[in-house]
Amino acid sequence: MASTNASVVFSGSKAVTSHEEEHPVKAFGWAARDNSGHLSPFNFSRRSTGEEDVRLKVLYCGICHTDLHNSKNEWGSASYPLVPGHEVVGTVTEVGSKVKKFKVGDKVGVGSLVGACHSCDDCSHDLENYCPKLILTYGSLYHDGTMTYGGYSDTMVANERYVIRIPDNMPLDKGAPLLCAGITVYSPLKYYGLNEPGMHIGIVGLGGLGHIAVKFAKAFGCKVTVISTSPAKKKEAIEHLGADMFLVSRDEQQMQGAMGTMDGIIDTVSAIHPLLPLIDLLKSQGKLVMLGAPDQPLELPAFPLILGRKSVGGSLTGGLKETQEMIDFAAKHDIKSDIEVISMDYINTAMERLAKGDVRYRFVIDIGNTLAASNP
Amino acid sequence: MASTNASVVFSGSKAVTSHEEEHPVKAFGWAARDNSGHLSPFNFSRRSTGEEDVRLKVLYCGICHTDLHNSKNEWGSASYPLVPGHEVVGTVTEVGSKVKKFKVGDKVGVGSLVGACHSCDDCSHDLENYCPKLILTYGSLYHDGTMTYGGYSDTMVANERYVIRIPDNMPLDKGAPLLCAGITVYSPLKYYGLNEPGMHIGIVGLGGLGHIAVKFAKAFGCKVTVISTSPAKKKEAIEHLGADMFLVSRDEQQMQGAMGTMDGIIDTVSAIHPLLPLIDLLKSQGKLVMLGAPDQPLELPAFPLILGRKSVGGSLTGGLKETQEMIDFAAKHDIKSDIEVISMDYINTAMERLAKGDVRYRFVIDIGNTLAASNP
Repeated sequence: MASTNASVVFSGSKAVTSHEEEHPVKAFGWAARDNSGHLSPFNFSRRSTGEEDVRLKVLYCGICHTDLHNSKNEWGSASYPLVPGHEVVGTVTEVGSKVKKFKVGDKVGVGSLVGACHSCDDCSHDLENYCPKLILTYGSLYHDGTMTYGGYSDTMVANERYVIRIPDNMPLDKGAPLLCAGITVYSPLKYYGLNEPGMHIGIVGLGGLGHIAVKFAKAFGCKVTVISTSPAKKKEAIEHLGADMFLVSRDEQQMQGAMGTMDGIIDTVSAIHPLLPLIDLLKSQGKLVMLGAPDQPLELPAFPLILGRKSVGGSLTGGLKETQEMIDFAAKHDIKSDIEVISMDYINTAMERLAKGDVRYRFVIDIGNTLAASNP
Repeated sequence: MASTNASVVFSGSKAVTSHEEEHPVKAFGWAARDNSGHLSPFNFSRRSTGEEDVRLKVLYCGICHTDLHNSKNEWGSASYPLVPGHEVVGTVTEVGSKVKKFKVGDKVGVGSLVGACHSCDDCSHDLENYCPKLILTYGSLYHDGTMTYGGYSDTMVANERYVIRIPDNMPLDKGAPLLCAGITVYSPLKYYGLNEPGMHIGIVGLGGLGHIAVKFAKAFGCKVTVISTSPAKKKEAIEHLGADMFLVSRDEQQMQGAMGTMDGIIDTVSAIHPLLPLIDLLKSQGKLVMLGAPDQPLELPAFPLILGRKSVGGSLTGGLKETQEMIDFAAKHDIKSDIEVISMDYINTAMERLAKGDVRYRFVIDIGNTLAASNP
């Protein structure tokens, strides 16, 4: 299946059209070919612009940790070649005849999703992200049966329901990560009722998600405490990101002193970690929301949940309506991601650095200015 | 500390007044003296009726599983002698000068709580049950520094805030268990929003809590599925209690068939048990509420919570205002506990049977007619 040259490749007894020729519109991007996760230039194709579709020229694409997991098939669901990227921004180059919301030249974005069933309970409540038939921006089968490819590429096409308008005052590079990291923290803050002024919110982990969570929680008027294993992040958290307090999670005395003080905690850590010290930080009725997904079950003590009517919940990105609301809110409150802009050919080094947490706080690929030059 | 005869007993170097003489009002009940959990007749005393106090003659007292845990000190917090009982009903025999809500002769009840701080956030929201200084009906130190004793006794006295009016049409014997088991299931159904008509609610475990949870969920207009390890309970659950469906939790095929169908699950099981099969039964946004408290942490897989924005929460009895609301609702909807009435001197046999789950579904002690005869 790795050929990108022959018009037809054979996989066992089944003939499949090549990635370059299955659709009419030529596209170029970078793809992982196997679970080494190494990315390299990749010629493929995109469908023509359907009646309800919006085509965009990609200018920037954020690098989400999910891209790293999927490039290496760490969740076992990857399909190669895999073009990552679901924090995609650019400008509209073509719209279908029935498109109402967008016109050529508009600044737009595409996040984690490009399709869903539009008939289930979740879809009818603008929660396409929980639709059992959701179609991810890359690595999913689209309605036409072809693989979806992400934003590490020069052009994209998506149904207008899945296209987000980028507000005029939102810079495209610093705005790109909001389309995944931003909505992933905004949605649970709202859904779990952790967006009331005066509430005390803990943010566990100060990475791509965590640093934006601090900004949204502050914009909601909350008191924000960053909880991290690394004391070195204290100055940054408070002076640069605007957190009110900082707790070193390994410092038992500090953690004891903060017991029972928080209305909610947004936990962005995907490594295995103990939940009890976090549950203990919550007031009664407090909510711990897990956004990172450790690959092994965590230990959940029932007593502290019962004694304080506390809960532990999860959340996965957000629906399209809420994503638009989020980025409009961000633009109004001057919330942007802290980023390091890279060129396309730096991607494999960036992935290595990301694996070590060596980024403040999100890599964004300058697709518009560097992708074409990487085409061999 | 086991003496009940001497007027003063010595505990180490500290002199303490005897249980019989520390208060002016003589009382008689049954108490556990050590972690054998064996109960026997016990002469003690109650405080005189304070300005805001209501005194009652106890007529019936339900036996909660908590009484068994505490009699045997299985949670490590028991203080002997221990008079259990927090599902107490009777008639008012005296009221303090400032009591407004009750008069002599009224039918009343006392549940799990007899005091709290009345100044914290939880208390100010009528959630005395989550107050960090809550005073339990038995085995807690009251404001005056003396031990509280429960309802396995002839008389009780409580601040009127902690006294519940029993509606006229509620039988005292079948109503008694509502004061703990009833509010313990009613409160989470409401708090977690699992009381909307048409919702599908799962009830795990068909015991003292579970059988009342079925009745409340049905009264809210929900579709109710009982989930149990024991297929033998199917007929009873559906024909007698009015559940709509029954799932055998050990039958993988049945469980698979019900995946993603429930809005919420009330889990009354306190033995260690896997959460994943229950989480899988939930729709997205579904809530699993744990009421039983296994003594070891449970395994919590993060992925299914995240992918479906599901949560796992706890709940502990209810506040006094909600307890009154619950019993008024129960009276209106003809909800009563299914009980087996016993005499006081049957208590140790009843505890043995309770430990084996051999009761349909709650023992209630006929204090009014049998306690006096048990006084040696």
